[in-house]
Amino acid sequence: MKIKCEKSEFLNGLQTVAKAISTKNTIYALSGILLFVENNELIFRATNIEMAIEYRQKEVTVLEQGSIVVPGRYILEIAKKLPDEMLELASEGYTFFIRYGNSEITVNGLDRDQFPDFPEIEGNYKGVMPLFRFSGDIKEVIVAAGTDESRPLFTGVLFEIDGEELSFVATDTHRLALRKSGWLNKGDEGKIAVIVPNKILQEIVRQEANDDALLEIVIGENEISFKCENKVYISRLIEGKFPNYHQVIPADDRVCSVVEVNASYLLSTLERAFILSRELVREHIGRVSISLVNELMSVDSRSPEVGHIHEEIPVVQQGEDISLIFNARYLLDILRVIETENIIMRFTGVNTPLVLMRKDDDRYLYLALPLKG
Amino acid sequence: MKIKCEKSEFLNGLQTVAKAISTKNTIYALSGILLFVENNELIFRATNIEMAIEYRQKEVTVLEQGSIVVPGRYILEIAKKLPDEMLELASEGYTFFIRYGNSEITVNGLDRDQFPDFPEIEGNYKGVMPLFRFSGDIKEVIVAAGTDESRPLFTGVLFEIDGEELSFVATDTHRLALRKSGWLNKGDEGKIAVIVPNKILQEIVRQEANDDALLEIVIGENEISFKCENKVYISRLIEGKFPNYHQVIPADDRVCSVVEVNASYLLSTLERAFILSRELVREHIGRVSISLVNELMSVDSRSPEVGHIHEEIPVVQQGEDISLIFNARYLLDILRVIETENIIMRFTGVNTPLVLMRKDDDRYLYLALPLKG
Repeated sequence: MKIKCEKSEFLNGLQTVAKAISTKNTIYALSGILLFVENNELIFRATNIEMAIEYRQKEVTVLEQGSIVVPGRYILEIAKKLPDEMLELASEGYTFFIRYGNSEITVNGLDRDQFPDFPEIEGNYKGVMPLFRFSGDIKEVIVAAGTDESRPLFTGVLFEIDGEELSFVATDTHRLALRKSGWLNKGDEGKIAVIVPNKILQEIVRQEANDDALLEIVIGENEISFKCENKVYISRLIEGKFPNYHQVIPADDRVCSVVEVNASYLLSTLERAFILSRELVREHIGRVSISLVNELMSVDSRSPEVGHIHEEIPVVQQGEDISLIFNARYLLDILRVIETENIIMRFTGVNTPLVLMRKDDDRYLYLALPLKG
Repeated sequence: MKIKCEKSEFLNGLQTVAKAISTKNTIYALSGILLFVENNELIFRATNIEMAIEYRQKEVTVLEQGSIVVPGRYILEIAKKLPDEMLELASEGYTFFIRYGNSEITVNGLDRDQFPDFPEIEGNYKGVMPLFRFSGDIKEVIVAAGTDESRPLFTGVLFEIDGEELSFVATDTHRLALRKSGWLNKGDEGKIAVIVPNKILQEIVRQEANDDALLEIVIGENEISFKCENKVYISRLIEGKFPNYHQVIPADDRVCSVVEVNASYLLSTLERAFILSRELVREHIGRVSISLVNELMSVDSRSPEVGHIHEEIPVVQQGEDISLIFNARYLLDILRVIETENIIMRFTGVNTPLVLMRKDDDRYLYLALPLKG
């Protein structure tokens, strides 16, 4: 192959697909990026066993057709340092050339045959939603997911589909987030639920796109694909049955107190309290007490070695006074991503979940269990 | 003590002195910051065995005199997270209080008696120079210094004083930087040479100050002090005899080729070449070849596994063609800090130093030895 393209276009493509490069070197080709020309576009592909990403770059000048697999990590590092000018990218046999000015970089590559085929996902469940809404929904939910790879069920987000309804749920068993959303259903009208790995979702929400970009979602037998503009993201689904989360969400009649509090103020208070709690033994890190007395919320954290923090935040309170012990991290995680001025906290008891909601949006909730006193 | 001061003022003071906090906890008080009130100023001090820093904050409201030693690391972390408002800082016995709104942070402190006295440096050699010039000079020199603590001589900068002349020299024995500077001598007119640890110099060049700020330097028996605006930096001097560097600098008649090259272009080229060289065995990392042929400088780097980079940079050349092997890091370090458009490279042979100079300033030079071919 031989093409001309701008450095920025080359770098964009590499950066988009790079997260799907395998870091385990069991199959050498999977640590590479496949580059090939098709319909006057330069196509970038990377895949590991879990996920695959494709990027299509239109604005290139094709001088010769062809393909090559290049070492992903090196090409990306080198591309970041290339001068901002027009590049000639060429392959001859298993060698890849980057030329600019009077300079030439020669990189050892692999034949395309050694690179796995890219799956084409077919499925009866499919639909479309604006990317910016999808990204906002996922960011608010994914914070409740777990990171423990030995419990894969909890390292993903549940997509629960019922016609035009699409809900996202994540939990690490200590806290849970639920966003009721929707999509334009373009497939079957029935119900389905699948668990999508966090890794692919993090890549999708990170991407830059036009404000009106649409995300096409297709759910296959064992895989899911997301298409947006010139990018395709494919991931395996996580196998297993997601726990019945409905029974965890407290009914309205279980709520004993409701407060409205400024989200950024509560965030700063908890960040300060968290610093002192870090001096505690490992299982107590993050331990803070939250008390509600007469329209004042007090946050306390104490380290015998360092000292004590006591903060008071004025709140709008309905219901009884209450005091409980909390892991500050559970609240910090959501307060750092939720984009809203005031949040509603619904207390249900000292050993039962605290529910956080947005003020004007009852289709989102985040709940977390208090610690034992 | 009891004072009122803005959060930003409190944080500035802590951040300025924090680098002198001891991270080795052999003497607990040295991991602390001494706070005390004197002449309506709040004074911050930190010291470890090597260096000491003082910061004086004028704009505080003093309600009660007093002093306390607070745990440095915690206070700094907490202060960063405090709300941007007026704080009340108070000490009662060995307890320190930070109050704001209805909130209070209580931190266990120590008595001032446990904190070492701050040395007052006296010396016959002293002088003044603009801080911005001192910082510029030191940045260009310190890149050549070593980091190996077992060879302390090379982890400092030589200050060589002769009346109004003040030269700065650093070397790690593979490369050397020399800046001939000057100061307004306010002490003895004789010659003296002392070695100042990099750590204190890095703190001084990092500080923010007014454009016209002056730096007062006093050289004592075993210590040196730097005063600038409301800050004082004190450091032990490094003992030992700095090598005679004059004999390392090639005489003009040893120079076989001189080239003028764009500094940022050479920097980018070497950064790309360095990526490939990283795949080599440890002692060859950074290994690049630089050749000068007929007004073209070629830079080559080769990794048998990954590939090869060949770049050509047009240069203005005087003298013979030459080709040598270089550690790219030695050139990258200086090219990243030197603020000049074009640099002059003076080649003296394949096994003898390469000298880099600024184009319009013969009072600075940086030299480095080639690698064995």
